[in-house]
Amino acid sequence: MELRIDRQAMVPVVQQIVDGLTEWIVQEQVPPTTRLPSVRQIARRNLLSQSCVMEACERLVAQGILASRQGSGFMVAALLPDYCRGSNGSEAGDEQHGRVTQSPWRGGLKLGAGVLPESWREPDDLSYAIRQVARADMASLFNYNDPLGLPALREQIAKRLGLLDIKALDEQVLTTAGASHALDLIMRTLFKAGDCVVVETPGHAPLFELLRLHGIRMLEVRRTPSGPDIEALEALLQQFRPTALFINSHHHNPTGSCLAPAVARQVLQLSRTYDLRVIEDDVYADLHNGSGTRLAALDDGERVIYVGSFSKTLSSSLRVGFVLASDKLIERMARVKMISCMGTSRFCEAVLAGLLASGAYRKLVQRQRQRLSTDRVAALQALEDADWEVFGKPTGGLFIWARSPVADEARLRGHALRCGVQLSCATSFSPSGEACDWQRINVAYACDPRARQFFRDTAMDRPRTF
Amino acid sequence: MELRIDRQAMVPVVQQIVDGLTEWIVQEQVPPTTRLPSVRQIARRNLLSQSCVMEACERLVAQGILASRQGSGFMVAALLPDYCRGSNGSEAGDEQHGRVTQSPWRGGLKLGAGVLPESWREPDDLSYAIRQVARADMASLFNYNDPLGLPALREQIAKRLGLLDIKALDEQVLTTAGASHALDLIMRTLFKAGDCVVVETPGHAPLFELLRLHGIRMLEVRRTPSGPDIEALEALLQQFRPTALFINSHHHNPTGSCLAPAVARQVLQLSRTYDLRVIEDDVYADLHNGSGTRLAALDDGERVIYVGSFSKTLSSSLRVGFVLASDKLIERMARVKMISCMGTSRFCEAVLAGLLASGAYRKLVQRQRQRLSTDRVAALQALEDADWEVFGKPTGGLFIWARSPVADEARLRGHALRCGVQLSCATSFSPSGEACDWQRINVAYACDPRARQFFRDTAMDRPRTF
Repeated sequence: MELRIDRQAMVPVVQQIVDGLTEWIVQEQVPPTTRLPSVRQIARRNLLSQSCVMEACERLVAQGILASRQGSGFMVAALLPDYCRGSNGSEAGDEQHGRVTQSPWRGGLKLGAGVLPESWREPDDLSYAIRQVARADMASLFNYNDPLGLPALREQIAKRLGLLDIKALDEQVLTTAGASHALDLIMRTLFKAGDCVVVETPGHAPLFELLRLHGIRMLEVRRTPSGPDIEALEALLQQFRPTALFINSHHHNPTGSCLAPAVARQVLQLSRTYDLRVIEDDVYADLHNGSGTRLAALDDGERVIYVGSFSKTLSSSLRVGFVLASDKLIERMARVKMISCMGTSRFCEAVLAGLLASGAYRKLVQRQRQRLSTDRVAALQALEDADWEVFGKPTGGLFIWARSPVADEARLRGHALRCGVQLSCATSFSPSGEACDWQRINVAYACDPRARQFFRDTAMDRPRTF
Repeated sequence: MELRIDRQAMVPVVQQIVDGLTEWIVQEQVPPTTRLPSVRQIARRNLLSQSCVMEACERLVAQGILASRQGSGFMVAALLPDYCRGSNGSEAGDEQHGRVTQSPWRGGLKLGAGVLPESWREPDDLSYAIRQVARADMASLFNYNDPLGLPALREQIAKRLGLLDIKALDEQVLTTAGASHALDLIMRTLFKAGDCVVVETPGHAPLFELLRLHGIRMLEVRRTPSGPDIEALEALLQQFRPTALFINSHHHNPTGSCLAPAVARQVLQLSRTYDLRVIEDDVYADLHNGSGTRLAALDDGERVIYVGSFSKTLSSSLRVGFVLASDKLIERMARVKMISCMGTSRFCEAVLAGLLASGAYRKLVQRQRQRLSTDRVAALQALEDADWEVFGKPTGGLFIWARSPVADEARLRGHALRCGVQLSCATSFSPSGEACDWQRINVAYACDPRARQFFRDTAMDRPRTF
C-alpha cells in the first residue's frame, strides 16, 4: 500500500498517514476485518518512521476505522463508520475529486492549502513560453546560469518591483530556486546557529523548519490584522536583542492580513533603533489588489531584505524566486549560491523572463486576482452564514483565517472528514507547535460544494461560547 | 567596461580580470596610454572587490600591458606587447572564436574547461523532450516535485546504475539540482563545522570551496594514475581519524585517471577498518568507455555515497543530478532538501526522464564518447609530439593532465595568450592553493588549431629538465 506522503505539506506526516489509510480503505472498499500489513512494512514501503505509522494507526483505532489485532498489528474495523462505507466521495464533483486524488496532498479537498488549485492553472502561455525557449535559445538549453541569475529576468523583476515603489537595480536582484531557497541563502549568509530572530505567530511551518535546520532560535510576536504587535515586538527587541525579524508584509500566511502603513513605519523605526534586519517575505505579492505598503519601499538604508516567488502564481515546478538586497549582500549570497549548487536553472529563468516581457504573466495574475476576489466575497459570506469568526477581513491574497463555532477539535475534524474536506494541522502555524483553533482557509477551495457543506454542518453543531 | 566575471569557473577571479582587461584592450583596440577607469569604478561595476582588481592590474603592469599612472590608477601601456596589438585572434577560426566570446568564460580557447564545448551540444532531442513535457504533462508544468524527486526519473537512474553493477532501489536515489547540490546536501546532513575529511590532490576547486563553506577541514592525499595513494591514505586515517573521503572514481578531475579495481578494494577495506564514509563523485561516468570499477558497486554496507549528474553531458542549464545512498540516509537528505528549497524542478526532471526512457540520452552519450575517443588519440599524439609529459594515459572522459616542456610559468602563459588559449589557474587544483605546473587539458578543445599552435610553440621553447 503506497501512502504518497507529501513531506512539504502543511499537514503533519501522522495526519497524512491517517488520511492515506482512510482513503485506501474507502476507495479500495477494503472488506472489514482485513488484516493490515505490519507497521514495519508500511513504514518501510513509505519511508516513514515506525512510530509515526503506529501513532496514525492508533488514531484510526480511536476513530473506529481500524481495530487492534490480538497479538500485534491492526485490521480494518468490523463495523466501519458510515462515512467510510461504500461511498468514494466523488458525489461532490467528479472532476474536482479526480483532481484532488491526483494531487500529492491526498485525502480530500485541500481547504487549507497554500497554493492555488490545479484547476486554476493555465497551461497555454506557459507551455508556449517553454517551447519558444526550447526552440530558439541554445544558451538557455545548455549553459550554466550567471551567478546572480539570468540578466533578462533580473531586469524584469526589478521593473515589477518598481511598480510596488521598491527601488531595485538589476544587480540588487539575485534569483533563487523559489522563496525557501532565498530564505536559506539569507540564513546561510547572515546567521549562525544560536542566533536569535523574531517570527510572527501564527506563521507558516516551512519558515520555522528552515530556522530550526539552521539552529536559529525563534522569538514569537503576535500577528494582528494590521501587522506584528508593535509593543510586544519592542519588548522582545529590548529584552533579547535579536538580529532579525521575519515578516510577511502582505497576505500574511496564514492570516491573510496586510501590514498597515503606520505599522510598517513603526517596524522600520524599531529596526533602526535596535539594529534589526528585516526579512520581508512577500510571496503572495502578485495576488494583492492595489499596491500596499512594502517595508522594502520605505527602507532608506540596507535593513530590509525582500523575498519574492513565482511558485504561488505561475508554477511551483519551475522553481523560480528571488531576493532583493544591497549589492554587497547580494554578492555574498551569490557566492554561497554558486558554491552550494552552481546556480539556478537558466532554462527556467528564460521561460519566466519571456512571460514577464510579453505581458502574459501580468495578465495571468490579473485574472487570478479577479477570480479570487469573487470567491473571497462568496467565502466570507458562507463563513458568516455559518457563524465562523473571521480574523480581519482580507481584501486580497489566498487566505482567510477563521474560527468555527464548533468548540471541539475532534468534532470539527469529524465534520470535515465526512464532507471530504481536509483541514490544516492545528499545530503547524505556531513556531512552538502550540495547537490553535483557527483554520487557514484557501479562498480558491472555499466555494467547492464540499467546503460549503462543511461550513453548513459546523453551523448546525452546538455553538461555541466566544 | 563590463568584465563578465564567471564565479563558477575554475579560473580564479583575479586571472579572469587579467584576461578580461587584456581582451578589452585587444578587441576594442584601445589606444596606448588610454587611462583606465579607477580601480574602484571597475570593482563596483563588476561586483568585484577592489583588492582583486588592484592585483589584476598589477599583474598586467608586470606583463607590460598596463602602466602605472603617476599619482594613482592605471593606463594602457605606451608600447603594447606584440600579441596585444591589432589582432583580435579570430584568424584561428571565426566560428570557433565567435562561440568562445559568447561564453561566460572569456579570453580565449578554454583549453582547461570542465565541460564539453557548446559546439558539441545537440539541441534536437532535448528540445523535443522539453516540448513534449510542455504539451502533455500538466503536473510537471505546475506542481511541486516529490521530496525524493520524480519517481519516473529515479527509476531510470536506478536502472542506469544497474548497468554499472551498482545495485540501487528507486527509494535510494534522491534527485538534486546538480552534483554540487548533492554534495552540499551530503555535507549539511552528515558533517558539521570542524569535521575533518580527506580529499584528493590535485582535485577540483568547487569541492574545496564547498567544504570550506561548511567549515570542514581537508586532509590531502595524492592522486596516482590508479587512484589515491593508499599508503598515504592509511597514514592519514591512522593519524587524524577523518570521517570521510571524497573521491572521483572515474576520469578524476583534473587528472582523468580511473580507479584500478585493486585500489578500489583497498579503499573499501580501509573505509571498513577506519569507519570512513566514502563519497564517490562520478559525474563523468557517462563519458567512460566500458564499465570500470565503482566503489558503490563493491560496497556491501552503507559506506559509499554515490553522486552523479547530467550537467556534463546533456545540459548544465536544467540542473539535474542525483545521490545514491542507504534509504535511511536518503530520507534524512530529502528532509534537508525539502526544507531548504522545497525540492527540485519537476519540469526539468520530467524532461530528463523522457530522454532516458526513450533511449535518446543513451545514444547522445554514445556519440560523445566516440567523438572524445577520436579527439583523445589526436590530442595525446599532439602532446607527445610537443614533448609534454602526460599523467597516466586516459582512455575515457574529458581530461588529460599534462606538463609542458616550458619550465617557466610566465613564459607558458605567454605562449597561451599569443595563441588565444586560456589555461587553467595554476593554483586551483590544490586544496591548499599550492601552485602546480601541470595543466588540465580538455580533450574536446585540444584539437582546435589554437591549441595545436600552442603545443607546437611550447615544443620550440627551451626544454625543461625533468
